Amino acid sequence: MTNDIRIDGQRLWDSIMEMAKIGATVNGGSHRLTLSDEDKTGRDLFKQWCEDAGLTVTMDELGDMFARRAGSDDSQHPVGMGSHLDTQPYGGKFDGVFGVLAGLEVIRTLNDHGIKTVAPLEVVNWTNEEGARFAPSMLASGVYGKVFERDWALSRTAVDTGATLADELERIGYKGDLPIHDHPFKGFFECHIEQGPILDHEGIQVGVVDTAQGFRWYDVTLEGFASHTGSTPMVGRRNALLGMAKIVQAVDDIALEHAPLARGTVGSQVNIGPGSRNIIPAKVEFTVDMRHPSADTLEVMDSALRQVSKEVADEIGLTLSLEQISYTEPVAFDETCVQAVKSASEMLGVSHQYITSGAGHDACYVANIAPTTMLFAPCKDGISHHESESAKQEDLEAVTNVLLHAVLDYAGVS
Amino acid sequence: MTNDIRIDGQRLWDSIMEMAKIGATVNGGSHRLTLSDEDKTGRDLFKQWCEDAGLTVTMDELGDMFARRAGSDDSQHPVGMGSHLDTQPYGGKFDGVFGVLAGLEVIRTLNDHGIKTVAPLEVVNWTNEEGARFAPSMLASGVYGKVFERDWALSRTAVDTGATLADELERIGYKGDLPIHDHPFKGFFECHIEQGPILDHEGIQVGVVDTAQGFRWYDVTLEGFASHTGSTPMVGRRNALLGMAKIVQAVDDIALEHAPLARGTVGSQVNIGPGSRNIIPAKVEFTVDMRHPSADTLEVMDSALRQVSKEVADEIGLTLSLEQISYTEPVAFDETCVQAVKSASEMLGVSHQYITSGAGHDACYVANIAPTTMLFAPCKDGISHHESESAKQEDLEAVTNVLLHAVLDYAGVS
Repeated sequence: MTNDIRIDGQRLWDSIMEMAKIGATVNGGSHRLTLSDEDKTGRDLFKQWCEDAGLTVTMDELGDMFARRAGSDDSQHPVGMGSHLDTQPYGGKFDGVFGVLAGLEVIRTLNDHGIKTVAPLEVVNWTNEEGARFAPSMLASGVYGKVFERDWALSRTAVDTGATLADELERIGYKGDLPIHDHPFKGFFECHIEQGPILDHEGIQVGVVDTAQGFRWYDVTLEGFASHTGSTPMVGRRNALLGMAKIVQAVDDIALEHAPLARGTVGSQVNIGPGSRNIIPAKVEFTVDMRHPSADTLEVMDSALRQVSKEVADEIGLTLSLEQISYTEPVAFDETCVQAVKSASEMLGVSHQYITSGAGHDACYVANIAPTTMLFAPCKDGISHHESESAKQEDLEAVTNVLLHAVLDYAGVS
Repeated sequence: MTNDIRIDGQRLWDSIMEMAKIGATVNGGSHRLTLSDEDKTGRDLFKQWCEDAGLTVTMDELGDMFARRAGSDDSQHPVGMGSHLDTQPYGGKFDGVFGVLAGLEVIRTLNDHGIKTVAPLEVVNWTNEEGARFAPSMLASGVYGKVFERDWALSRTAVDTGATLADELERIGYKGDLPIHDHPFKGFFECHIEQGPILDHEGIQVGVVDTAQGFRWYDVTLEGFASHTGSTPMVGRRNALLGMAKIVQAVDDIALEHAPLARGTVGSQVNIGPGSRNIIPAKVEFTVDMRHPSADTLEVMDSALRQVSKEVADEIGLTLSLEQISYTEPVAFDETCVQAVKSASEMLGVSHQYITSGAGHDACYVANIAPTTMLFAPCKDGISHHESESAKQEDLEAVTNVLLHAVLDYAGVS
């Protein structure tokens, strides 16, 4: 009875810890930037583990790695499980890595029990999810999902050496031959740490990710007039920082009006000038980030932002520039995949809840092409993109057991 | 009848324009930093003009220049008229210079008419009013007013070369022998451009300055927690920028509650981190500048700032550091001096109004020692500390005529 099998939590944990040694930082994190020497070493280790597990590893032209386990009906498209092995600069041990090695642990478990699935299975490592060495993030999955052009992606340059993605793929030996668009999936499942505090604070082990937020990013500039803080009367001032203060609060209010799913933030990237304690701020440049899983609600939030910004600028006599610099559509993950995850959670009796992904993930782009969903594991206080990123072995084990049974259900047992 | 005499507005204007050529900038301003080669050349020209007008020029140990015209009763302390000849980096032609050359123009006019005063008169150039090359501002008048120690002032170092004030005084030949504290005045009158928009916008020629604002400067730091803009729920965020926004708004509100004299500003010197559009601001550092001519009101404003800052920090869960880094007491200028200016304005029939100085001036420190007041001239849109600083010849002429008759009244005609 396949319902009784479980993954090996210790083996999963040990693999994550082993991978974390590659590019390990003194503060307990990992520094394994896309297509760096460390990324090559990480890929080599992953490839070796896959081959040891009897998988066939292929690569596409973007360096995406696919480790295949044959199904009983190899005419079916494979069911993918994976995420990414690259990290943020001085990032954590779990972001991305957990999703790839959870897939590998499922394979190892099936091997242990001699279970064959009907559809083939593939463990996937997507190239350059983090976007730290090559912008933008989710680059290869974005090409796969037809959001970015392949040639454009290959020509992106590294922030450190200026080498192109194509050059660096060649250099580390991970430029494959497979056309990226010639790789259909029957379904795709990505495990990931939540990177938010909800599961950790509520004591829930498994996040059943049914949606991912759409987001709009804006660049805003307000220009007023620099004058002396002492000799300029309050009335008639054109204080750009006061305008920004009102917009910061309005962005918070707009998100709260669409609670609990909405997010609205003026980010921590701000310029204020001219830079003197006794000169009234003449110019401020800041960013706005608004998110919601409903495109319609996001549209309403956009209108509110535009209206309040204009009102504030008019009231204070400021010149306003508000430009939307990017828009990422919300994702509704595939109902069948989501249901497979939910049913597996129930069957296993692990605590779980529906959750919306607030961050972008490879799965969000893969969802453009294939039935897809995600499984979130709690991480301590929601901290991520930081060396102190932390997750519990028992939680990763629980999520990977859910992945195992969701995939068995979805791929079928022969 | 001395009431009929008037200064020569063209001569005053020409002298200001001649002085402005020293360190002239391509955009029509002046760059004559304290004790620089340009300052030496400006001092030399002023000294020559004073000697040409029959004055005796002496210097004290801080390089302050005193150009004396004997009175009929030389046992009386002199009546001083002056300001400063140094400028801001790429500053204007009028800030400071007008006050010194208005004094010289009064002397020249008295010479033209062969009028002798009872008390001696002195035209004064105070060293380092601007504080741009040597911090802080109003350094020599501050020593004179016993706010700063003499030896501390002499040891201040130049931001460009690192040389001390004492060294630079020696280098340019303006280190005098007179003890700075051995120089009493019967009274002191400083003409200055307003550096604010009130007179210009209301079409008034003469500001009768009866008070100068006290001010409190604060350094504020708010620390929250950096987290992802997408995956962090709105409730529970510790957004330091949101806290700052509320305090920016509150500082504005506090000043408006004490309108029209109060000023309250978060200045344009702000640090916000960690510096990413999709990370919630974790730390903000900013400054607060609050001003009022009443020490009691300033105390009330201080309490309000402290209370609201604490409330905001508590509400959002931020760590607050709020430190008052300087306090300058309000100044009530001498009633007799103020009345002399008001009476002269009335006698001459020029438009005038009482006004509070929002900025610091040499006169604010001289007032600690001697009966003192100031006369403000309008400057275009209140713009100052800028190459585009601009004033009208007719306004400077009107103010200098008021100075002439106020000083004749105050010093007495023999």
